Amino acid sequence: MENRVYNFAAGPSMLADEVLLAIKEELFNYHGSGMSVMEMSHRSKGYLEIFEKTKNGLKKLMNIPDDYEILFMHGGATGMFASIPLNLTKGKTADYIITGNFSKKAADEAKKYGDVHIAYDGKENNYTHIPDENELSFSADPAYIHLCANNTIYGTEWKSFPVNHKATLIADMSSDILSKPVNVSDFGLIYAGAQKNMGIAGIAVAIIRKDLIEEADVKVPSIMNYALELKHDSMLNTPATYPIYVLGKVVDWLEELGGLAEIEKRNIEKAKILYDYLDASKFYKSFAEKESRSLMNVTFSCGDPDLDAAFASKAAENGLCNLKGHRLVGGLRASIYNAMPKAGVEKLIEFMDDFAREN
Amino acid sequence: MENRVYNFAAGPSMLADEVLLAIKEELFNYHGSGMSVMEMSHRSKGYLEIFEKTKNGLKKLMNIPDDYEILFMHGGATGMFASIPLNLTKGKTADYIITGNFSKKAADEAKKYGDVHIAYDGKENNYTHIPDENELSFSADPAYIHLCANNTIYGTEWKSFPVNHKATLIADMSSDILSKPVNVSDFGLIYAGAQKNMGIAGIAVAIIRKDLIEEADVKVPSIMNYALELKHDSMLNTPATYPIYVLGKVVDWLEELGGLAEIEKRNIEKAKILYDYLDASKFYKSFAEKESRSLMNVTFSCGDPDLDAAFASKAAENGLCNLKGHRLVGGLRASIYNAMPKAGVEKLIEFMDDFAREN
Repeated sequence: MENRVYNFAAGPSMLADEVLLAIKEELFNYHGSGMSVMEMSHRSKGYLEIFEKTKNGLKKLMNIPDDYEILFMHGGATGMFASIPLNLTKGKTADYIITGNFSKKAADEAKKYGDVHIAYDGKENNYTHIPDENELSFSADPAYIHLCANNTIYGTEWKSFPVNHKATLIADMSSDILSKPVNVSDFGLIYAGAQKNMGIAGIAVAIIRKDLIEEADVKVPSIMNYALELKHDSMLNTPATYPIYVLGKVVDWLEELGGLAEIEKRNIEKAKILYDYLDASKFYKSFAEKESRSLMNVTFSCGDPDLDAAFASKAAENGLCNLKGHRLVGGLRASIYNAMPKAGVEKLIEFMDDFAREN
Repeated sequence: MENRVYNFAAGPSMLADEVLLAIKEELFNYHGSGMSVMEMSHRSKGYLEIFEKTKNGLKKLMNIPDDYEILFMHGGATGMFASIPLNLTKGKTADYIITGNFSKKAADEAKKYGDVHIAYDGKENNYTHIPDENELSFSADPAYIHLCANNTIYGTEWKSFPVNHKATLIADMSSDILSKPVNVSDFGLIYAGAQKNMGIAGIAVAIIRKDLIEEADVKVPSIMNYALELKHDSMLNTPATYPIYVLGKVVDWLEELGGLAEIEKRNIEKAKILYDYLDASKFYKSFAEKESRSLMNVTFSCGDPDLDAAFASKAAENGLCNLKGHRLVGGLRASIYNAMPKAGVEKLIEFMDDFAREN
């Protein structure tokens, strides 16, 4: 691949070379159709094959049980923040576990539409920590419990999910879906914006247990109505056809590579060499608590804002791009999603070592 | 271009060869950035340049006055059907002019959120007709008047817009935006799903007069909140980055070709040869009333469902694809958006002539 950089952006983010190659190959003329997938009617036979293949591929890859549906929704995870309470609260209280910026946003959006109970808020520990089961306090009979599986900004991730409850668990997996096997049956709803591990921006993928999908008892904008979208197989209106196609390519790539167990192995390996380096270093400080560390987003700092800025800028000159941390945390962040090869992390560590010695 | 067909789909639809070539050229490595636009963070300098260039290019192309804002919204036109009443009704009645399926859907969605007055309904004439000014009856003081500028399914189009009113005019231009010059100042809001004349599915483009954007007085899902999206320059959350980039390429192409006056000339020419052929034919019947005919979607029939089906299928074998009419109308439909070259229409007419002689 011609002069490609290692892109550590938190999302939209790097795609695997294999995915981009497959896309380029088919760009003008998809399988002899004489047109690009970008130009295909969502109702055409050719596109419907892509659509079904993508859904079936994802179902197989994630081992999604038959009593779940895959919906392609509009508006990314932020759209889901509204559609979840609108569709699923049904007059009951909804419990939210706040472990970072996006779970906070999800809870704030839900407050517009009903009672919200905060089961945990990591604000005091500056969101460096993922709570244990005994730190959570749920309400008596919540409509659901919502959490964010991986906190992109803070670099923390749930290693196991709460089980001491009787409610429906909902997880925003925007930044760690497809990074490892997940037991879908533990959740009523798993959702993710596609632009990290599922391809490109433009869709939210919702994996939802069928019995949860009922006609809502409040007024829901049609594009946010789960029952309507299910009835129309995510084609109530024109879906974001190209992002769905790209997701299919990502699924193919992961399947060929050995599935989610294999990518988890690689992700653990990639993250381990970076965290091991950070732990051994006297120059760099890592942000998240050790037990709560994310495999996807590694947050750290040189301990000085000017040095951090110099680091990010010099790294970019060396083909290691987008390492600046989110403004809420500052410092540095290496997002090492599925598509980031181990060679990228190794080159980063090499650079970190040089930078530490020179500063 | 390698074996490309003429794609007459109503949307998603054909892209100009120039647009696809530009996309392919930059697919792996955008301007030496070492990454694809698909992989770019929406907050990165590189992507923000694309974003600004797209907005400025569209502003210039459409001659959008300074007191208007361009917002990139989620959920296509159907998302707008909800966000318009949510943001703009403010307790008043909203007037809807129904000239087809999508204006009906827009009105139905608005009814969820407030009082709707139907200023005209073309149901009786089976939506073959665009009303004159004197056929419209507006309510006393509507929040706005909504119409659909081009009716994709029925093949009708407004040639001039209502002026005998004091309300804010809102137009869904999903299927004729960028096909001809429009006086933006005549409207409070013009919007369009991108997948016809603006590139690919995944965004709705909203061109809105600034003074209309105020904090809504009802609860609006954040991704549908115009004031919030304006505050964040359409980046409240990750926008559909690639469709915005493709829109930029479409704008470049139209600008180079001579702008909207030039494309209008070409569109009139393309439509004229097809309508002239239909009018002269004894075999084909055209659907829409002559005065109401669309430049973008030409609806016609062989007068027999079996013949229509045979036509569509044989046409496809000859590289003239997606000519089947919408199920609500039946028959045949040739969508000849900006990207359809005159040669495609000429080839279609040639085929029509052969088919008529053989049947």
